[in-house]
Amino acid sequence: MQLPKPYLLFLGDVASEPYAKTAFGLRDWVPDDVEGQYRLSDCQVDLGIADMTPAQAASSGVKSLLIGVAPVGGEIPAKWIPALVAALESGLDLVSGMHGRLAAIPEIRAAAEKHRRALFDVRHHDAPIPIATGAKRPGKRLLTVGTDCALGKKYTALALTQEMTARGCKATFRATGQTGIMIAGEGIAIDAVVSDFVAGAAEIISPANQPDHWDMIEGQGALFHPAYAGVTLGLLHGSQPDALVLCHDPTRTHVAGYPDFKLPDIDAAMDLYLRHAMLTNPAAKFVGISLNTSKLQQDEYDRVVENLRTRFALPCVDPLRDGCAAIADRLLAI
Amino acid sequence: MQLPKPYLLFLGDVASEPYAKTAFGLRDWVPDDVEGQYRLSDCQVDLGIADMTPAQAASSGVKSLLIGVAPVGGEIPAKWIPALVAALESGLDLVSGMHGRLAAIPEIRAAAEKHRRALFDVRHHDAPIPIATGAKRPGKRLLTVGTDCALGKKYTALALTQEMTARGCKATFRATGQTGIMIAGEGIAIDAVVSDFVAGAAEIISPANQPDHWDMIEGQGALFHPAYAGVTLGLLHGSQPDALVLCHDPTRTHVAGYPDFKLPDIDAAMDLYLRHAMLTNPAAKFVGISLNTSKLQQDEYDRVVENLRTRFALPCVDPLRDGCAAIADRLLAI
Repeated sequence: MQLPKPYLLFLGDVASEPYAKTAFGLRDWVPDDVEGQYRLSDCQVDLGIADMTPAQAASSGVKSLLIGVAPVGGEIPAKWIPALVAALESGLDLVSGMHGRLAAIPEIRAAAEKHRRALFDVRHHDAPIPIATGAKRPGKRLLTVGTDCALGKKYTALALTQEMTARGCKATFRATGQTGIMIAGEGIAIDAVVSDFVAGAAEIISPANQPDHWDMIEGQGALFHPAYAGVTLGLLHGSQPDALVLCHDPTRTHVAGYPDFKLPDIDAAMDLYLRHAMLTNPAAKFVGISLNTSKLQQDEYDRVVENLRTRFALPCVDPLRDGCAAIADRLLAI
Repeated sequence: MQLPKPYLLFLGDVASEPYAKTAFGLRDWVPDDVEGQYRLSDCQVDLGIADMTPAQAASSGVKSLLIGVAPVGGEIPAKWIPALVAALESGLDLVSGMHGRLAAIPEIRAAAEKHRRALFDVRHHDAPIPIATGAKRPGKRLLTVGTDCALGKKYTALALTQEMTARGCKATFRATGQTGIMIAGEGIAIDAVVSDFVAGAAEIISPANQPDHWDMIEGQGALFHPAYAGVTLGLLHGSQPDALVLCHDPTRTHVAGYPDFKLPDIDAAMDLYLRHAMLTNPAAKFVGISLNTSKLQQDEYDRVVENLRTRFALPCVDPLRDGCAAIADRLLAI
């Protein structure tokens, strides 16, 4: 799946910024791929970029309308459909990260057929995926892993890719979730893959490469998550990472949404990740800790970081505060 | 999915017994659900039960024709199709464990529609599966786990169910693979579930039950398998087992089909299974070791068993040689 860029970002009638995380992520990580925003009249969010209709976007070279918001309930609201159909009529393809397929909406399917436009459902990967071989492949790979979901695994992989590229190193962000795929323009939504094929999908997401090339693979879930640990383990085995970065939120005490499940200690987490990683890459090692510390004051943050650096003898950063240079230094040293 | 029983077992033109494992499993485990076999003229395998045409079977009360063989290549051969269509014409439903769906074959789909018969693809579960909650549910559960695939996890769960039932205990075999589902008449093929939902599927396969009822859950894969470990971990978390049985083949040195992957030591395997099991059930413990020792002479077997019993202070049996009474004793003692 190669998504046609550049994008026009569709915000629909979204009421607040958290629901537009995907659109903000695209604006921030791949500004060159984003030409403008398309908002319905009652939209409450502004990305601070040019407003465009689909017709204006098409005539300025935009290839796809990308749904950049997560609607409440997870389904495309009926009031968005005329706007999406208008995009198809203007000659744009559609890109969606919803669970349901765009083609399941009759008006959208009919308009796509009539105007011969493509519908990209980034959560669905229709090409066959092989069973994992476990065979060692050339190229270097880093995987971000976590003590929980939603604490910066995608952000860390993106920031590290940017840091490495800025230094002239060969590095590619490898996407495993819908927003990541939209940013990269390709990838596989690993949690939507049939379970037998998860490790195999990870193998093709980060394929053989030049010996000095780094794939920076977006992690998913957590080994300590009562619902998603299997996804995490398959991704870990198939990625065969040389390097791991542990993502952690020091203020979180329990698995998000699962108040009966305590977060693991960092050392227990690292131990278990390494033990599993070594199955497919005995040389796997941690090269850093990436913190999500939006809730900490600077002095608290300094204390937490100093403590973790000393305890684990690893670079420890919040990428939003410090960038990822310290982790990239360690990566280039191994 | 509730499969209509009794079955007529279809053997097609199968050339040797290993390809008819499913049919033999059904004949041995649920003889009351099997009325006969239906073989093409060049079939080389005989289950030793009555030969019947679909029409004869239908008139003696059979409800489904069940494909009891794994065709080479995994697809239904064209030469089987007239026989399968004849079964639908006779009023039988079809049950298949193939990867592909029966309805994808136009002649079968048309005959099923015309004669209003149902097509059961046991590898596919079309009803929605929830995300795992991790919430503790009543009833006791045992899960068979392994140092590899294909070394007796289904057999052990079935034998334990039989042993417990024979003692008057409440026990139900819970199927997670296609042959198991055909035997139980229900279940979910866990390796065909989208990865996000594997733990959730395990929760609904072994639902809340009476406090003294045991679910005997068929394990899948292995935590040390480079392709399937994610399936195993999701099943382990969702099953929330009170009891685990480790299945092992003492003559196997490497993961089957993966010569670069050594089998783990039994103690390392138990340690890792327990560590993960305790996430969703802190009281989880091993209650036995189930060996697959078809390649061992009796004196070698005796030595292996004695060694393992002493080393792990657990019942250790090959269910084919000793039955599962020793494990059932331990189970009832916890």
